[in-house]
Amino acid sequence: MSQPFPFSAIVGQAAMKQAMVLTAIDPGIGGVLVFGDRGTGKSTAVRALAALLPEISAVEGCPVNSARVQDVPEWAGVTSGKMIKRPTPVIDLPLGATEDRVVGALDIERALTRGEKAFEPGLLARANRGYLYIDEVNLLEDHIVDLLLDVAQSGENVVEREGLSIRHAARFVLVGSGNPEEGELRPQLLDRFGLSVEVASPRDIETRVEVMRRRDAYENDNAVFMKKWRAKDSGLRKAILAARAALPGLKTPGVVLHDCAALCIALGSDGLRGELTLLRAARAQAAFEGAGVVSRVHLRTVAASALGHRLRRDPLDEAGSGARMARTIAEILP
Amino acid sequence: MSQPFPFSAIVGQAAMKQAMVLTAIDPGIGGVLVFGDRGTGKSTAVRALAALLPEISAVEGCPVNSARVQDVPEWAGVTSGKMIKRPTPVIDLPLGATEDRVVGALDIERALTRGEKAFEPGLLARANRGYLYIDEVNLLEDHIVDLLLDVAQSGENVVEREGLSIRHAARFVLVGSGNPEEGELRPQLLDRFGLSVEVASPRDIETRVEVMRRRDAYENDNAVFMKKWRAKDSGLRKAILAARAALPGLKTPGVVLHDCAALCIALGSDGLRGELTLLRAARAQAAFEGAGVVSRVHLRTVAASALGHRLRRDPLDEAGSGARMARTIAEILP
Amino acid sequence: MSQPFPFSAIVGQAAMKQAMVLTAIDPGIGGVLVFGDRGTGKSTAVRALAALLPEISAVEGCPVNSARVQDVPEWAGVTSGKMIKRPTPVIDLPLGATEDRVVGALDIERALTRGEKAFEPGLLARANRGYLYIDEVNLLEDHIVDLLLDVAQSGENVVEREGLSIRHAARFVLVGSGNPEEGELRPQLLDRFGLSVEVASPRDIETRVEVMRRRDAYENDNAVFMKKWRAKDSGLRKAILAARAALPGLKTPGVVLHDCAALCIALGSDGLRGELTLLRAARAQAAFEGAGVVSRVHLRTVAASALGHRLRRDPLDEAGSGARMARTIAEILP
Amino acid sequence: MSQPFPFSAIVGQAAMKQAMVLTAIDPGIGGVLVFGDRGTGKSTAVRALAALLPEISAVEGCPVNSARVQDVPEWAGVTSGKMIKRPTPVIDLPLGATEDRVVGALDIERALTRGEKAFEPGLLARANRGYLYIDEVNLLEDHIVDLLLDVAQSGENVVEREGLSIRHAARFVLVGSGNPEEGELRPQLLDRFGLSVEVASPRDIETRVEVMRRRDAYENDNAVFMKKWRAKDSGLRKAILAARAALPGLKTPGVVLHDCAALCIALGSDGLRGELTLLRAARAQAAFEGAGVVSRVHLRTVAASALGHRLRRDPLDEAGSGARMARTIAEILP
Amino acid sequence: MSQPFPFSAIVGQAAMKQAMVLTAIDPGIGGVLVFGDRGTGKSTAVRALAALLPEISAVEGCPVNSARVQDVPEWAGVTSGKMIKRPTPVIDLPLGATEDRVVGALDIERALTRGEKAFEPGLLARANRGYLYIDEVNLLEDHIVDLLLDVAQSGENVVEREGLSIRHAARFVLVGSGNPEEGELRPQLLDRFGLSVEVASPRDIETRVEVMRRRDAYENDNAVFMKKWRAKDSGLRKAILAARAALPGLKTPGVVLHDCAALCIALGSDGLRGELTLLRAARAQAAFEGAGVVSRVHLRTVAASALGHRLRRDPLDEAGSGARMARTIAEILP
Amino acid sequence: MSQPFPFSAIVGQAAMKQAMVLTAIDPGIGGVLVFGDRGTGKSTAVRALAALLPEISAVEGCPVNSARVQDVPEWAGVTSGKMIKRPTPVIDLPLGATEDRVVGALDIERALTRGEKAFEPGLLARANRGYLYIDEVNLLEDHIVDLLLDVAQSGENVVEREGLSIRHAARFVLVGSGNPEEGELRPQLLDRFGLSVEVASPRDIETRVEVMRRRDAYENDNAVFMKKWRAKDSGLRKAILAARAALPGLKTPGVVLHDCAALCIALGSDGLRGELTLLRAARAQAAFEGAGVVSRVHLRTVAASALGHRLRRDPLDEAGSGARMARTIAEILP
Repeated sequence: MSQPFPFSAIVGQAAMKQAMVLTAIDPGIGGVLVFGDRGTGKSTAVRALAALLPEISAVEGCPVNSARVQDVPEWAGVTSGKMIKRPTPVIDLPLGATEDRVVGALDIERALTRGEKAFEPGLLARANRGYLYIDEVNLLEDHIVDLLLDVAQSGENVVEREGLSIRHAARFVLVGSGNPEEGELRPQLLDRFGLSVEVASPRDIETRVEVMRRRDAYENDNAVFMKKWRAKDSGLRKAILAARAALPGLKTPGVVLHDCAALCIALGSDGLRGELTLLRAARAQAAFEGAGVVSRVHLRTVAASALGHRLRRDPLDEAGSGARMARTIAEILP
Repeated sequence: MSQPFPFSAIVGQAAMKQAMVLTAIDPGIGGVLVFGDRGTGKSTAVRALAALLPEISAVEGCPVNSARVQDVPEWAGVTSGKMIKRPTPVIDLPLGATEDRVVGALDIERALTRGEKAFEPGLLARANRGYLYIDEVNLLEDHIVDLLLDVAQSGENVVEREGLSIRHAARFVLVGSGNPEEGELRPQLLDRFGLSVEVASPRDIETRVEVMRRRDAYENDNAVFMKKWRAKDSGLRKAILAARAALPGLKTPGVVLHDCAALCIALGSDGLRGELTLLRAARAQAAFEGAGVVSRVHLRTVAASALGHRLRRDPLDEAGSGARMARTIAEILP
Repeated sequence: MSQPFPFSAIVGQAAMKQAMVLTAIDPGIGGVLVFGDRGTGKSTAVRALAALLPEISAVEGCPVNSARVQDVPEWAGVTSGKMIKRPTPVIDLPLGATEDRVVGALDIERALTRGEKAFEPGLLARANRGYLYIDEVNLLEDHIVDLLLDVAQSGENVVEREGLSIRHAARFVLVGSGNPEEGELRPQLLDRFGLSVEVASPRDIETRVEVMRRRDAYENDNAVFMKKWRAKDSGLRKAILAARAALPGLKTPGVVLHDCAALCIALGSDGLRGELTLLRAARAQAAFEGAGVVSRVHLRTVAASALGHRLRRDPLDEAGSGARMARTIAEILP
Repeated sequence: MSQPFPFSAIVGQAAMKQAMVLTAIDPGIGGVLVFGDRGTGKSTAVRALAALLPEISAVEGCPVNSARVQDVPEWAGVTSGKMIKRPTPVIDLPLGATEDRVVGALDIERALTRGEKAFEPGLLARANRGYLYIDEVNLLEDHIVDLLLDVAQSGENVVEREGLSIRHAARFVLVGSGNPEEGELRPQLLDRFGLSVEVASPRDIETRVEVMRRRDAYENDNAVFMKKWRAKDSGLRKAILAARAALPGLKTPGVVLHDCAALCIALGSDGLRGELTLLRAARAQAAFEGAGVVSRVHLRTVAASALGHRLRRDPLDEAGSGARMARTIAEILP
Repeated sequence: MSQPFPFSAIVGQAAMKQAMVLTAIDPGIGGVLVFGDRGTGKSTAVRALAALLPEISAVEGCPVNSARVQDVPEWAGVTSGKMIKRPTPVIDLPLGATEDRVVGALDIERALTRGEKAFEPGLLARANRGYLYIDEVNLLEDHIVDLLLDVAQSGENVVEREGLSIRHAARFVLVGSGNPEEGELRPQLLDRFGLSVEVASPRDIETRVEVMRRRDAYENDNAVFMKKWRAKDSGLRKAILAARAALPGLKTPGVVLHDCAALCIALGSDGLRGELTLLRAARAQAAFEGAGVVSRVHLRTVAASALGHRLRRDPLDEAGSGARMARTIAEILP
Repeated sequence: MSQPFPFSAIVGQAAMKQAMVLTAIDPGIGGVLVFGDRGTGKSTAVRALAALLPEISAVEGCPVNSARVQDVPEWAGVTSGKMIKRPTPVIDLPLGATEDRVVGALDIERALTRGEKAFEPGLLARANRGYLYIDEVNLLEDHIVDLLLDVAQSGENVVEREGLSIRHAARFVLVGSGNPEEGELRPQLLDRFGLSVEVASPRDIETRVEVMRRRDAYENDNAVFMKKWRAKDSGLRKAILAARAALPGLKTPGVVLHDCAALCIALGSDGLRGELTLLRAARAQAAFEGAGVVSRVHLRTVAASALGHRLRRDPLDEAGSGARMARTIAEILP
């Protein structure tokens, strides 16, 4: 059972799965926040993602998975020029990780003594070209979340210690999970995640029985189970690759831009990251559906994920922000 | 009196003893939380467990009790290939233990200077293939509990320091005791324990006199006392070994899955870990009873232990969560 | 005046003195907690205890006062096999002592460099076979009290640092003093002390004049004073030695066990440590009185000390827990 | 896309852009505080500033960008006398930067051992003759903000450790951004910033669509987009250089001084920094507009930026301090 | 003006001066607490005390001012056997002094390396046979006050670090000053001071003018002023020496003991330290007055200083504890 | 513009300037506290003070500016005996300065290894014979303020570490500024400052225009401006030198002492520092005015500065303490 549970075999949780697929098509959408109850398979889904994602081609031995020999950082001391295939990295950031462990450690002593830059790359290096997963992101200290979002946005990790400076590519998608009952992220940080989704336990018996059945098959009939679902995962992987290829040629009519702005104004989302992300996510969705032109349909599909975490809370709106968003989407994008 | 009090000689406390037996049959059920008054023999029971559990066969000198020579970690520097019998480890995690002491210490200095991986294994190494006992788990810091549950779930301990990485098997069952009046575990952590039981002082005189009698015999007539009860412990050990052997062949009818889901929905337990654990515990119970098929009877027997710590508290339900659960079990699994 | 004030010359405070005598007869009773006003001679009493207690025979130079050459720990490097007589140790644990000072310090550096176990024993080593006194135990940090009670219970001190492990016997009786107005011990810790007594200033003039008289004689007429009271101390010491010898042969009728349980149930003491300690204390009391059989009389004598700190507080019982206990003892053990 | 978004292509946000332009003309005005919602392009604007600002001529390899060989600090060990052109530095001060990283690290050990002053310059050195940007300045610790404002005001960074002393020029303009909802600066610190501006998301659809259009062009049609806007940036750069040259010859009539004082008294701004800054900003504005004499028109243009953060809050003035200032300006400078 | 202000020249403050004189006659009375307003000359009085106190004869170079060569601690490495006269030490304990500075520092490293006990004595060593003054004792941490009182009581300072142990005589009188408005001592600590006095600013003009006059003369006419008052100080010093000599032969009638106890019971002072100190202080007072027998008169003179800090506060007694004490003394000792 | 703004050119703020002048005449008056709004030129005034104060004659290279060769501390290792003229030191104590930086650092390691006292003098050494300025003194930690006031009062800095002891002269006047709205000093500390003044922004237009005019002239017409005001500063410096010379011969009639005491009693100032300081300040004021005898006029001039910070706050006196003091002065010193 060393292989993770297949992504496609996860029962329900469509929004979470779709958000992960969209960031696989366009990592520029930014990170994904997954809110929700414990025990709803968030961590299973992230581990499943690792097996779903397309393999990457990387220089052998390169600590940041460089795609070309000329991109290998000098400090890595890599001499091989051989390319290898490897899984898209999905790296776990453990609660309580030190900053050194995250960004890498620069050994000043050694650098001064031996005259060489002594850098031990951290988790951000290993996450390059892949995913960085943070369980219970709301329990991390603000300055670490801030640092992660800064690197995720700039695509570069710069480590500076006492006058020495090391830099390397660190392009990755952040996936954070959290239970809002146990502490909240500052709005400032929330806004810097691309998409957000909520997950909950299914409420009907049949779905829950199906969860047990698949789990049981995974544990007690592993070979048959994996064969069946690995095929499904493989189909999904192909669809992602096709969407990536289609993305640059996709058309975005002016009316769609207008719709984006109108929806954000109606929802009162602060700042402009709302519409910029909404547009990117809609384009990825359109590409995934094989459409040549982005349309209002695609906006509707992704609006809740792209904007849900950017609304101010309205303490008088008893229906909750989810209902308010659904109502507004229906009005503005009829 | 260097031998612990026999497990079978513990008066009463059936739920606690049964939960420990179930995890001895299927360690995959997960840890056990024991809540309750001080002075109810929680710590005595854990020490008794050490003598009850079946012996394991391990490579001589291996710090993680490996079952096969090829599983001995490289860093252990073990050259002997001899197998020895040894008791199932039951390791105490003292309050205030440092992270280094728990996961093991990686001596970077030494590694860099002498070019060898210098790893001093910690308590998690010693607990492999056994039990890890934490008294007053509710007083531990969250990140340590988190770490312990992560390792317990993955079965592997990974120690990373400044670019070096050591890993070893760490499959163990967590047993935690706590007094809920002195601090609570976060629901997030509670949910990751497999079973929970409550213990209380007996309220009738005869039971309490029996406790004193057995204690007195243990202290003042040790040889006779041990002989009598060691025989009982030996019978229980055999029953556990038989149940382990029967577990893979056990049948689980669909209606049992349906019962699991229905009960969890009726109780409103968050997430899906509830039914997954309920099913595993019921299977272990069935195997212990020698049944070939899991039935509703087995679910009823283990439901309180498997689900009790996964209910949201209902401040209006004066009867308490115990009564609510009993009522619901009677309704759903008549 | 380098000799402490004689134990027998302490005016009044019978309960405190009796509790100390009982633990001198059977150290297995556990520690003694002395609650009460400042200036009531708690600290004088402990220093007096040192001179009262019987001398022990120990290996010369052994840091843990071993009674036999084969018990001297390896790390002590003791080569002499000569036995010496020395006073029963009464060790003071100063407020603010570090854990290293208490349990001993293990010098990893030295151990690694020279290949020898470099252990500097701590206060627990020096307290072996004697008493450990903690003034204002309620101001100690919980984890230190916890550690002390663990060692006191197991009789062994285990020091582990980065993979090295040192152990030595540490059998001692904890005597803690505290003023409950300045902070309380957690019930969990309270329960692990064997006996508790309250001390208060005498309220009648004659007693107080007598205190001044004896103090004055001790300070200004030391030689005469010491001669008189040392004789009394010597008589008490002989009675303790006789009681120790009589203890194993003492009979405990079943009705006494029944009385123990009935009293604890009536008082609602949590857990089972109450009756176990009550029984041990009554046996020591019976031995001290020269009785061959434990009786209800002995239970009555020690009940308040053995159970007083194990009652839940009843906020509605205005008479206070002392009165409640006296009433209950009178009802249950008429 | 390694080139930043052009300053001129930023849609709206006139006040923020103008404040930055004024400090580019006369850095003596002091820092700029930018308050406002997340996602309003504050950080984009600062990165754009780097490309807008005129290049400086500096000694090659000089860590503080000295304009003349004789100004290169001794400790820099620079031997080249070659002058190079380089962009005006815009340095980011990351949240959580240590004091050593900010002011530079003085290696006492090395200094004592080798008899040389071992100084690793910090961010303040790199910011000399340029800008220092602090995102979320309200989350910095007071003593760091204090230190930054002290250095910014004196133009010199002095690092003293255990009797050694290093100093270097550190003339820069602080640009701080912050969201007042997440913590406020002490009035004492607020007062030491020269200008302040508020930014907000545009509220009309056309502006927001324009933001998306330009962002899209920047990302998907980069070459054409940059060519167009780089020309605009270049025009603005020339206007700044012309204003710098005109500044010393500008006339300041007495009535303008009178207006400054009257406005500050009417607004009740504490202290005298208000009018001193107002005057400097009005002079820079006049120079930017090509006027030869400062007039009331220029005061009106810059008054809100120069004084807004120096008003005491009036809890009874529901119109807010912005409205109060506008009203007062209209009354005093009709 | 390097000589301190003369003790006799202090205007008023009779209670404070008398308390200091009593402890000079019998240091066994214990420390003195001086409560009161700032600026009432507490610190001037302590510095004056240094010049008033009789000189001591000490071994030259001995760090603990030993009176005999055989008392010089081994670790001091003193070889001279010459006796010198030196002022009674009055040592200042600065706020914020570390424990090492107070008790002395034991250099383990050096001890292990060179095989010698490397001890740097602290303030307690220097205070031996003299006074230790703590300004604002109520701001010290409890464990330091506790440590000081322990040493003051036992007369010995024991420093133990990792198995090494150093001890030296440390007999001194603690003088603490404090302003009760800025924080209080725990009753537990209060009780361990021998005497307490309150000081206040004089309320009549003539006294205050006299203070200014003497201060002025001290500063501007130092030689004449010092000559006059040094003579008075010298007389007081002789009286102290005479009282010391008379103390052992003083008679204490039984009725005086009875009075002591009666007064303490009437005042409800906790514990027995009250009457023990009252008696000692009355004896010192009698000796100072040249009486051969202690009488009720002497008790009355010192009762307020000896008992004032040992009363429980009575929130209903509006007259304050001072008035209550005066009333009770008048009733009990008419 | 490297020369500070001239002291005489500061517009208004007479009380602050006078207080600084008085301490220049008699440093024994003690420190000056300047309370008030931000931006009122407190820091400008202190920097101006440096240029105003008379030069001192000091031994070349002496770290404590000794006036005589025999006063140079031994540890300074100064061999030159040459005298130089240098400005009166005005040293800035930065917020957040460590204790080592303030008092000096004693390098024990070096002292032990090389047998020399290795002392790096701190800010207190550099402030000897001058001024120590603390901006925002109310934000300093109490123990640092305490330490500064102790040294200021004793005129000597003693640094003791692990048995080593260094001392040097540290006679300086503390000048502290603070905004009482941001935190207050404890009364205990307030009382130890000699004088206090409040500063506020001018409320009339002409004064504020004059501030701008002088600032403008200082910045844009520096040479002319400095020439004019340096002459005024020079006159003030001569007046200070004359007053210093006259001070010892000044007469103080008894009635003036009486007035001092009467005023302090009427104001209810705690302790006696009030009248002692009032007298010293009045003497300095009389000397500055060229009077031969101190009179009630001089008392009136300095009373507010000398006593204002020593009044208890009266919450019922709505006119504020300033008005209360003015009223009392008018009544007592008509």
